[in-house]
Amino acid sequence: MAVSARVLGRGVPALPALLRRSLCCAAPGRTGGGARRAALAAAGAAGALGLALWRRRAAMAASEEDEDEEEELRFMAPPVSGLRELRRRRRELRSRMELLIMETQAEVCRALAALDPGAAFAVDSWERKEGGGGISCVLQDGDVFEKAGVNVSVVSGLLSEEAARQMRSRGKSLKAKDGKLPFCAMGVSSVIHPKNPHVPTMHFNYRYFEIEEADGTKQWWFGGGTDLTPTYLNEEDAVHFHKTLKEACDKHDLKLYPKYKKWCDDYFYIKHRGERRGIGGIFFDDLDSPSKEEVFQFVKSCAKAVVPCYIPIVKKHCHDSFTPEEKLWQQLRRGRYVEFNLVYDRGTKFGLLTPGSRIESILMSLPLTARWEYMHTPPASSKEAEILEVLRNPKDWVY
Amino acid sequence: MAVSARVLGRGVPALPALLRRSLCCAAPGRTGGGARRAALAAAGAAGALGLALWRRRAAMAASEEDEDEEEELRFMAPPVSGLRELRRRRRELRSRMELLIMETQAEVCRALAALDPGAAFAVDSWERKEGGGGISCVLQDGDVFEKAGVNVSVVSGLLSEEAARQMRSRGKSLKAKDGKLPFCAMGVSSVIHPKNPHVPTMHFNYRYFEIEEADGTKQWWFGGGTDLTPTYLNEEDAVHFHKTLKEACDKHDLKLYPKYKKWCDDYFYIKHRGERRGIGGIFFDDLDSPSKEEVFQFVKSCAKAVVPCYIPIVKKHCHDSFTPEEKLWQQLRRGRYVEFNLVYDRGTKFGLLTPGSRIESILMSLPLTARWEYMHTPPASSKEAEILEVLRNPKDWVY
Repeated sequence: MAVSARVLGRGVPALPALLRRSLCCAAPGRTGGGARRAALAAAGAAGALGLALWRRRAAMAASEEDEDEEEELRFMAPPVSGLRELRRRRRELRSRMELLIMETQAEVCRALAALDPGAAFAVDSWERKEGGGGISCVLQDGDVFEKAGVNVSVVSGLLSEEAARQMRSRGKSLKAKDGKLPFCAMGVSSVIHPKNPHVPTMHFNYRYFEIEEADGTKQWWFGGGTDLTPTYLNEEDAVHFHKTLKEACDKHDLKLYPKYKKWCDDYFYIKHRGERRGIGGIFFDDLDSPSKEEVFQFVKSCAKAVVPCYIPIVKKHCHDSFTPEEKLWQQLRRGRYVEFNLVYDRGTKFGLLTPGSRIESILMSLPLTARWEYMHTPPASSKEAEILEVLRNPKDWVY
Repeated sequence: MAVSARVLGRGVPALPALLRRSLCCAAPGRTGGGARRAALAAAGAAGALGLALWRRRAAMAASEEDEDEEEELRFMAPPVSGLRELRRRRRELRSRMELLIMETQAEVCRALAALDPGAAFAVDSWERKEGGGGISCVLQDGDVFEKAGVNVSVVSGLLSEEAARQMRSRGKSLKAKDGKLPFCAMGVSSVIHPKNPHVPTMHFNYRYFEIEEADGTKQWWFGGGTDLTPTYLNEEDAVHFHKTLKEACDKHDLKLYPKYKKWCDDYFYIKHRGERRGIGGIFFDDLDSPSKEEVFQFVKSCAKAVVPCYIPIVKKHCHDSFTPEEKLWQQLRRGRYVEFNLVYDRGTKFGLLTPGSRIESILMSLPLTARWEYMHTPPASSKEAEILEVLRNPKDWVY
């Protein structure tokens, strides 16, 4: 896996102009994957000089592109599969999913950057030696956000039967040809750690898998979820967050929200602490019915709900005053976040064990700072004890 | 598992006087395990009042004790098996090992406290519902030490065949009666995180296991090691540390140090980073030859080397000046320490998965504070790059 290009901007709203240009040279439809890789590698290797060269080439080719389409696709970087290729196979679900995750990444990054205008998003396009690549966008040490990462990855290749089994949480058996299974996996994942202890951490992840069995049958499934981890409980925020997710689910089936709310509480469980990581949200995996189209539409609704369920909470609290004690409690909760992600999270574990995976993109979910105090116990009836109670005994927020 | 007593002292040198008193009520030889448990539980439940009561009871009984023996055994708290019981079966190896780990704990705590006179050691005696217990000593947020934990545990009970296999790193098969194996495990383990980035973190752990198979055969083995994790490389310190450990090993067999030095470099490997956790030391596991007595004497030499290999380094650097940038690099290295301990360390993983284990004692190894920056790369030829080079390519320090 090699990081092939790095684009840094002070604030995201300034990026699309640059990206409109850079999209062109990244479309394999014209230059081919090899040329694209070479152009990106040149930009990466030569630094500022390479970037200037890349921009010039892109500018030369820009006139050949459909300006309207470029306007519409304001992504953070050229898509992994290339715009031309995505357009060519626009009816295929994996193309539509790749466009959805790219759109979601840009939507969330723009919304975050608008709230933290002094901060910079680092945008890294990277390639995976074994096939595919990704785009990692990270804003670090801003005024509002301690660390905000939004990552897209689109990878493909061959999986061992064992690895394929691990990818499916319910472990369906898969028949491989010569022990190997061609696969394609893509997703957008994000963790937002704000500075102010009154603004909760938020995580979301939407992903799609395809595996081809020995007889040519394709297995496919979706997974995903959005969940909130407050340092202090604010019931109004919790209700807003869950209600927004419920509305997204209810458009498709009234049974979805209760089922995925419970799955979320069960999944984000720090067993050795007897606590959930946060106040939940929704979580689902292995979703392959009723139909590919219907599941995609559901996932799309969930992805579109990320900004409205979270951004209003950030706006509401990002200027709240706080005490050093509240900051300290936030740091201790960050420690628990690290414990969940490194000890239990399936995605993180799978990533750390997968050869060729991009560690910096996987571990961007970790907070900038965290703290562990021996035997820290908040006093009964304190605000700290109040949130612990909810983490130990999850509540229903919308019924 | 219940925490049964908490003794707090401002600086350890003041503790033994109190502990001379408290040892008496803890000897099951006189009061029995039940009475000891009750006395400890009373102290825990009633807080300051309970502690006063406990001291009074202890004072009443003090005259009945052999004062010389008490003088000799300046432990941090009454041993788990009780002094009377340990004296009764003084020839058995597990009694001698329990005394060794108690002595090591007290020796290290006293040496640390002497360097950080303004700080307090919290001493917690705890019991494990399933059998046994331990004593955790933690000094937190001192002037010299950010977090220093020295933990003793002596536990026993029944293991599943699967759990027993996991305990042995080389996975020898064990024959159980009705699927269960009676076991006894004891050890001292410690992690010392200093504040000053020029003082390295140190970890050590010495442990002993016994498992009884279906036919009554007892399997036993020792494990352990001592290793150093500097933020910045100081070659003189590295040589002193390794030389002291080598001398301890050489007294027993010249082959031990090179073998266990390599094992240490291999074990403390953060695979997803391609880095070792630190500059190593020694590490061994499953040690069951040439004889129980010889291995015990070797482990004893290693345990006795902890203070001389580390304390001179702390003394030398604890007043060094440092910059905010050096502190920041220390915090990033602390993050890697957390990654190793939560993702790879067998002891931590085993502890987190074992029902009834004391989480606070297991996770006292985590630093007080840690940091994760996305894509942090120190400049070439910097002091930060120098230590990374050694973590990526371990060096021989004494040849």
